[in-house]
Amino acid sequence: MTTCPFPTDDDADGDTLHEECGVFGVFGDTDAAIHATLGLHALQHRGQEAAGMVSTDGDQFHVLKGGGHVSEIFRAKRMPTLQGSAAIGHVRYATSGGTVMRNVQPLYADFAFGGLAIAHNGNLTNAMVLRETLVNRGCLFQSTSDTEVIIHLIAVSICSKVEDRIIDALRQVQGAYSIVALVKDALIGVRDPKGMRPLVLGKLDGSWILASETCALDIMGAEFVRDVEPGELVVITKDGLTSHRPFAVTRPRFCVFEYIYFARPDSIVENRSVYDARKAIGRELARENGVDADIVVPVPDSGVPSAIGYAAEAGIPFEFGIIRNHYVGRTFIQPTDKTRNLGVKRKHNANRPVLEGRRVVLIDDSIVRGTTSMQIVDMVRQAGASEVHMRIASPPTIHPCYFGIDTPEREKLLAANHSVEDMTRILGVDSLSFISLEGLYRALNIEHRDAKNPQFCDACFSGDYPYQNPDLALRTRRPSVFLHDQGSDVS
Amino acid sequence: MTTCPFPTDDDADGDTLHEECGVFGVFGDTDAAIHATLGLHALQHRGQEAAGMVSTDGDQFHVLKGGGHVSEIFRAKRMPTLQGSAAIGHVRYATSGGTVMRNVQPLYADFAFGGLAIAHNGNLTNAMVLRETLVNRGCLFQSTSDTEVIIHLIAVSICSKVEDRIIDALRQVQGAYSIVALVKDALIGVRDPKGMRPLVLGKLDGSWILASETCALDIMGAEFVRDVEPGELVVITKDGLTSHRPFAVTRPRFCVFEYIYFARPDSIVENRSVYDARKAIGRELARENGVDADIVVPVPDSGVPSAIGYAAEAGIPFEFGIIRNHYVGRTFIQPTDKTRNLGVKRKHNANRPVLEGRRVVLIDDSIVRGTTSMQIVDMVRQAGASEVHMRIASPPTIHPCYFGIDTPEREKLLAANHSVEDMTRILGVDSLSFISLEGLYRALNIEHRDAKNPQFCDACFSGDYPYQNPDLALRTRRPSVFLHDQGSDVS
Amino acid sequence: MTTCPFPTDDDADGDTLHEECGVFGVFGDTDAAIHATLGLHALQHRGQEAAGMVSTDGDQFHVLKGGGHVSEIFRAKRMPTLQGSAAIGHVRYATSGGTVMRNVQPLYADFAFGGLAIAHNGNLTNAMVLRETLVNRGCLFQSTSDTEVIIHLIAVSICSKVEDRIIDALRQVQGAYSIVALVKDALIGVRDPKGMRPLVLGKLDGSWILASETCALDIMGAEFVRDVEPGELVVITKDGLTSHRPFAVTRPRFCVFEYIYFARPDSIVENRSVYDARKAIGRELARENGVDADIVVPVPDSGVPSAIGYAAEAGIPFEFGIIRNHYVGRTFIQPTDKTRNLGVKRKHNANRPVLEGRRVVLIDDSIVRGTTSMQIVDMVRQAGASEVHMRIASPPTIHPCYFGIDTPEREKLLAANHSVEDMTRILGVDSLSFISLEGLYRALNIEHRDAKNPQFCDACFSGDYPYQNPDLALRTRRPSVFLHDQGSDVS
Amino acid sequence: MTTCPFPTDDDADGDTLHEECGVFGVFGDTDAAIHATLGLHALQHRGQEAAGMVSTDGDQFHVLKGGGHVSEIFRAKRMPTLQGSAAIGHVRYATSGGTVMRNVQPLYADFAFGGLAIAHNGNLTNAMVLRETLVNRGCLFQSTSDTEVIIHLIAVSICSKVEDRIIDALRQVQGAYSIVALVKDALIGVRDPKGMRPLVLGKLDGSWILASETCALDIMGAEFVRDVEPGELVVITKDGLTSHRPFAVTRPRFCVFEYIYFARPDSIVENRSVYDARKAIGRELARENGVDADIVVPVPDSGVPSAIGYAAEAGIPFEFGIIRNHYVGRTFIQPTDKTRNLGVKRKHNANRPVLEGRRVVLIDDSIVRGTTSMQIVDMVRQAGASEVHMRIASPPTIHPCYFGIDTPEREKLLAANHSVEDMTRILGVDSLSFISLEGLYRALNIEHRDAKNPQFCDACFSGDYPYQNPDLALRTRRPSVFLHDQGSDVS
Repeated sequence: MTTCPFPTDDDADGDTLHEECGVFGVFGDTDAAIHATLGLHALQHRGQEAAGMVSTDGDQFHVLKGGGHVSEIFRAKRMPTLQGSAAIGHVRYATSGGTVMRNVQPLYADFAFGGLAIAHNGNLTNAMVLRETLVNRGCLFQSTSDTEVIIHLIAVSICSKVEDRIIDALRQVQGAYSIVALVKDALIGVRDPKGMRPLVLGKLDGSWILASETCALDIMGAEFVRDVEPGELVVITKDGLTSHRPFAVTRPRFCVFEYIYFARPDSIVENRSVYDARKAIGRELARENGVDADIVVPVPDSGVPSAIGYAAEAGIPFEFGIIRNHYVGRTFIQPTDKTRNLGVKRKHNANRPVLEGRRVVLIDDSIVRGTTSMQIVDMVRQAGASEVHMRIASPPTIHPCYFGIDTPEREKLLAANHSVEDMTRILGVDSLSFISLEGLYRALNIEHRDAKNPQFCDACFSGDYPYQNPDLALRTRRPSVFLHDQGSDVS
Repeated sequence: MTTCPFPTDDDADGDTLHEECGVFGVFGDTDAAIHATLGLHALQHRGQEAAGMVSTDGDQFHVLKGGGHVSEIFRAKRMPTLQGSAAIGHVRYATSGGTVMRNVQPLYADFAFGGLAIAHNGNLTNAMVLRETLVNRGCLFQSTSDTEVIIHLIAVSICSKVEDRIIDALRQVQGAYSIVALVKDALIGVRDPKGMRPLVLGKLDGSWILASETCALDIMGAEFVRDVEPGELVVITKDGLTSHRPFAVTRPRFCVFEYIYFARPDSIVENRSVYDARKAIGRELARENGVDADIVVPVPDSGVPSAIGYAAEAGIPFEFGIIRNHYVGRTFIQPTDKTRNLGVKRKHNANRPVLEGRRVVLIDDSIVRGTTSMQIVDMVRQAGASEVHMRIASPPTIHPCYFGIDTPEREKLLAANHSVEDMTRILGVDSLSFISLEGLYRALNIEHRDAKNPQFCDACFSGDYPYQNPDLALRTRRPSVFLHDQGSDVS
Repeated sequence: MTTCPFPTDDDADGDTLHEECGVFGVFGDTDAAIHATLGLHALQHRGQEAAGMVSTDGDQFHVLKGGGHVSEIFRAKRMPTLQGSAAIGHVRYATSGGTVMRNVQPLYADFAFGGLAIAHNGNLTNAMVLRETLVNRGCLFQSTSDTEVIIHLIAVSICSKVEDRIIDALRQVQGAYSIVALVKDALIGVRDPKGMRPLVLGKLDGSWILASETCALDIMGAEFVRDVEPGELVVITKDGLTSHRPFAVTRPRFCVFEYIYFARPDSIVENRSVYDARKAIGRELARENGVDADIVVPVPDSGVPSAIGYAAEAGIPFEFGIIRNHYVGRTFIQPTDKTRNLGVKRKHNANRPVLEGRRVVLIDDSIVRGTTSMQIVDMVRQAGASEVHMRIASPPTIHPCYFGIDTPEREKLLAANHSVEDMTRILGVDSLSFISLEGLYRALNIEHRDAKNPQFCDACFSGDYPYQNPDLALRTRRPSVFLHDQGSDVS
Repeated sequence: MTTCPFPTDDDADGDTLHEECGVFGVFGDTDAAIHATLGLHALQHRGQEAAGMVSTDGDQFHVLKGGGHVSEIFRAKRMPTLQGSAAIGHVRYATSGGTVMRNVQPLYADFAFGGLAIAHNGNLTNAMVLRETLVNRGCLFQSTSDTEVIIHLIAVSICSKVEDRIIDALRQVQGAYSIVALVKDALIGVRDPKGMRPLVLGKLDGSWILASETCALDIMGAEFVRDVEPGELVVITKDGLTSHRPFAVTRPRFCVFEYIYFARPDSIVENRSVYDARKAIGRELARENGVDADIVVPVPDSGVPSAIGYAAEAGIPFEFGIIRNHYVGRTFIQPTDKTRNLGVKRKHNANRPVLEGRRVVLIDDSIVRGTTSMQIVDMVRQAGASEVHMRIASPPTIHPCYFGIDTPEREKLLAANHSVEDMTRILGVDSLSFISLEGLYRALNIEHRDAKNPQFCDACFSGDYPYQNPDLALRTRRPSVFLHDQGSDVS
């Protein structure tokens, strides 16, 4: 529903899109590690598989990483190890089984100029090309992360100042990134020229904060200052903040899916309330695709704000016709033949007294593979709904994302392979509509989508990608090594 | 809110009431253990600290217990150990730190007549008195659980049939219980004469199911048959179900707090939809305590259905002005002076664009200590609400519960020590109202509360207890032994 | 070799006899738990699978148990939980896979008269018979341990003083036991009338100590006072020690295998140095079964003292021709076809420069299945020994033990099914001799074994058992319940 | 004693010298990982804190590392992950608390030419100097291990063939090393020009083996071929072994302490049986420092072979007057005032019947700090020895080792600060003698030590170091980063 529009840990079907990361940084704060922990906790919806933090006391660095949730990794007794008044942190969703500890961020390295840690939200599209060049000149890679490419580019840069080395490195990379970096006397934040991923700037008493979303400021009572702008690099030291614009100017293209699904509803990103945006999408959806019905029911949690907007616009009562079980964990019993189709019921249950005999408008944020939607529709029908009209708060998802979102292959995207008519039948609904791409822009207060130079990245709907993808040309390489580490440190 | 009206694991302040248990049983089912796991998962809101299951193949018994959530304990690889076509299970909230493995239910024992396992929701009020007698005759206790008293009473009964031994035992105990018991060829369910705790009967294909709530039937697509009735004992064997009425007839007094807070909103208990009951309470609250305002905002998750009811009755828009973070775990960093008051923010965040400049009706299910409410009100005000009117979907909680709910001592119950006027000031709201006791009964379709013989157990509001409490007279005894077991079994 | 004559954890072949337990008790000692830990550590060779301790401060009891070695379970940080100036402890070898936490001793129970803990070395032969009677009268058993039978007999005793209850209980049981028991104001020690298992009495400053062997006194610098005598019950309170003789007088029959293998060589039990006894056995073996050879080589560790005795008597040099790897752990890789026969090499390696071209007298303590002996002989031959003459420091083992030693079934005992001539061929040695039963007695300074009433329990060699075995008549029952506990306590 | 002359895990006093590593490699073996596990198990005495293995199937590499013993890390269920017919492995003793997973070897890296893994026994003396240069040119280090310097030197080498890159790298380093390296189609072994650490070559059916000691060949029945020679590099491929001599010729100086203490007695290193060498040292010790006495008693386990030699030469009976407890684990209870001096008793116990009233020659391998020796002498006296004459099987240890042995600072070495007369008094013995340096060489069949160019590295006795130590000049730097990783991999 509502309160929590982000994916849970349990997504056995792979029928959800996953943001890969959230980042946080704080500088000049005697409680740096504690605030970073709170900030990462508020950003937990952007990555639930692993998290890490690097702090510095201006001389030495401290690293703590682990698998699991922020609250499990940064336990009270571990906090004192993270000394210092500056820290950066990262939450991560593992894209595939191959994720191991050394891919967990922030990455840290000792350079000739001292230590540097870096945390990255987004995905580069020329990392493999660059990596090959670096390996050929003798660089040794410890991870499979594209972020390590940036680290090596910084290390081999001939510039002397650390911010110049970072700029030197980033001018060579292509793709989406919102990065926070930490050196012993500075916190650095930077967004790629098109600003695809969010990064906001805040203040808490005297200290500066960088975070993926404003909800990470709210949790500690910090003040929202402004977004870090696309293509902007900010350097925060004890003397304050300086802003740099090292990249050629280009029109920003923020990821529109952040509004649809990824960001928390209580966040304000790029000057828009996510909750309000979703309600507006719901209203637009009602205007575009009205239907005669008794109740509007969200697929919780992500469909809730759009459903509230839809219900208000359509004048139909909003009801929780589906109840969500929040205790779903990471592992669960294997289904047998008799229990195979119960998957969705571990998370959702139909609220029969609400649904029975009613004509239902069912609101969901998007359709990926469609497997979950089918089960939900079936469950709603079993509970006695007389009609089910599905309304989707995004256009059909038909193209993969190369910029940090884990999308299934094109052949598994329902809308990439089926007409709306087909999908209506496959999902078993009485009617099915998606908001139009134009309608989506309207809901975000943009009168017309600029087809030649769109105001957002909407590539998953339109196929119009903001950056090229040189890595695509490289055959997928088999990994050269498998790490089966026992894992426990010797101490 | 809605989806999840039950307490999370994290209740650092102890500012929530906790149901102590949920029970489940299934008989004649080739997937008995898998269905029991699904059922316990659906009942997870009734106890999150530990869980257990006992299955039988008609000859031998299998026991699996553990600390944590159902999905952690009953992992796929462990399931094959739970053989047989009948099983019972239990989820548990630990009342105090002293909970150890041997208190986790179901309890199992070998009797002269064979094995018996028992799982119990509720609390006895003469267990300590009975225990003393049993110890004096040479019975050895392995746990501090009142359920073990029932086990010993069954063991020393002179009756021969197992159901007669159980009846013999239960005739001696006093208090609240919904019990499921398993012997090698029968599943037994029984509720105390006043039926304080729920227990429902269901069927799935040919197999019988007993469960605390109907949501445990829904998750596996089982059919709801009826409530086990107060004072009824049902025996389920391969020959079907037989019903017994071994106790003197008395007026039932079902726990009204199950409707207010404990049960899942999608459950139907004692013939009422919990979701509908909560919405009706919200409507009644609006009628009793209307106020001029711009939006109705629930404290998620438990306040959501009442808020929907309130909003509909009052004609004021319903909005998610508070967003809940569902990733709150069991442990978390310790606050420092600067971070001390951030407690509530780990779970809830104000949705500023919704609240700013608005007159807010804030709906919560109940007030226990008031500490959380104070923080939430403060957070809502900080987000710019111009007025905050708090409306509580239950009467003031002023008496402790002796029947399976963990209530703080009377001196810590805010309403037990303060007038509504005082509380208005303490919580910092513009106005505060509770639903009246009469209003609560009306919302549940009972025209008038029968003061001499109330239709529900409402003792936490009224002080009118359904059963006496002989154990109260016994001084609290210091425990004689502390078990510091390392815990890992030798295998 | 020598230093360590006890079985390691790794006995994949089951080709070793295992003592099942060691016990320890201390009373009137401000460091009771620390000394008990040291004592159990010194007794670790008597049981390596699990250990436990119960302490009392004169009012409350504290229990700590776990799987693994003493040094793993009683870690520094756990010690403060074991409060009080009296404690008893137990180390255990698990007889079979079914061992679970609740079988780990000491067992504790709350009685009408207060708490009592008990730790038991030995095995009863009428426990199953007694258990059936107790279950029939309503007693509930929590373990499969025969020790719990004693607990229940104490609980249902009609005597009032705790020592009388214990005596009452023990008069009903049959079999081998050396027991230490703890109540809030007394430590109690008792040996069965025939004194089959050892139990010694010591003093450390003002405190009393009971232990299975004197090596547990040495480790803490305690003074050895005397053996607790067969059939003696000692009660130690703050007023000192009182001795009771509650059983009919009978000739003691101490287990002779304690001298051959079980006890530590630095212990003195029943007034004999174990090291000296083994050397004397080696000397007697040389006298009985001399052979022309170049070197005497022990199978380490248990064959070392006998080999020193043999070498001295025979005038042949003693050499470590086999080296033992002490890092063998509990689990290890599975053999493949090519590695299958390497089993013994994980523990032992031939010292080729010592063996090459030599005529070797190979000394081992006993032959159980013979599988290990075959591998060792083969290894010694591969290393170039020109002749291998095996000499065994005990008579042929041909009967199972019912008194606390885990022996394989009779059909797996090599000597029970083969003549010495056969065994010579099976083991691949040039000659094979066992010490005679008479020779064994002579080495222990007893001129002649009294065939009608032997001075030791030598049943594994002679078949002459000290106690009858009523449990043998009961068919082996299938267990009624399997405990698959997750194991971690809720805390 | 004897069988196991290597340090146990428990060395609370730090009163033992520790070898830092053992290495193993195998090529062309369908059971490569299993044989590597057996080999590492046999080399466990060279490092007990951590172990690792890298295997290759000729295409991909597999890495498994962990803290603890070989038998704990390479469990049966993990073995199938280590695919391929070639593998190298490493056991490690952690020099200080700072050891973390990323320092555990083998180290693996992806190079332009493919993957390479390396395992290193020994210590470089110019690693810090080289590291600084490498960092300045943009190399990023992931560990604090000197071995990683070699990895980077290989990576930046301009040679093309992998063996040439390794040679290029090793020509730049200084210090002791026996290295095994693995690339996808070759196993490489190399010893430093002075051959300070051992490395032997073996064959098992068609496969080649490299190992620190021959005991690792024995455990799998492999044939010993020869030592890899000082300064030799061998490359093993499917086409067989080729030998290279890339370094300037110099006189070898093998570490003499390998004979005294580090190597296993059943190993043959540099053409000498370790067991025979120790016995010869004992004999020489008896000739140099005879004394009138009743028994010769070793401090087990390391003093045993020397004691056998001493006893034989002196014609005095050899007896186990001290018994060792092999169950000493890694952690143990903290001493209180009363238990403080019991340290040594956890490991050793006096065998009173052997010692009482006897004049004892006590044999130990070496004296480091002397703390353990003091406790042992005191224990022997308490057990009734009438005289204690201590004889040490090595010259006084007075200089630190820079080549892979963890020695305490000079001020803590007893012999570096005290005369033999002083030490006699401090240890509380009747007499004390060390073997002379000349005597030690004689025992090893070298008539005279060549003072200008000694035949062994005996720097810990003589101060004459084989290699210079440029790193000594660099101030000890504070670490720049602390890794507090939670440790468990995400998988």
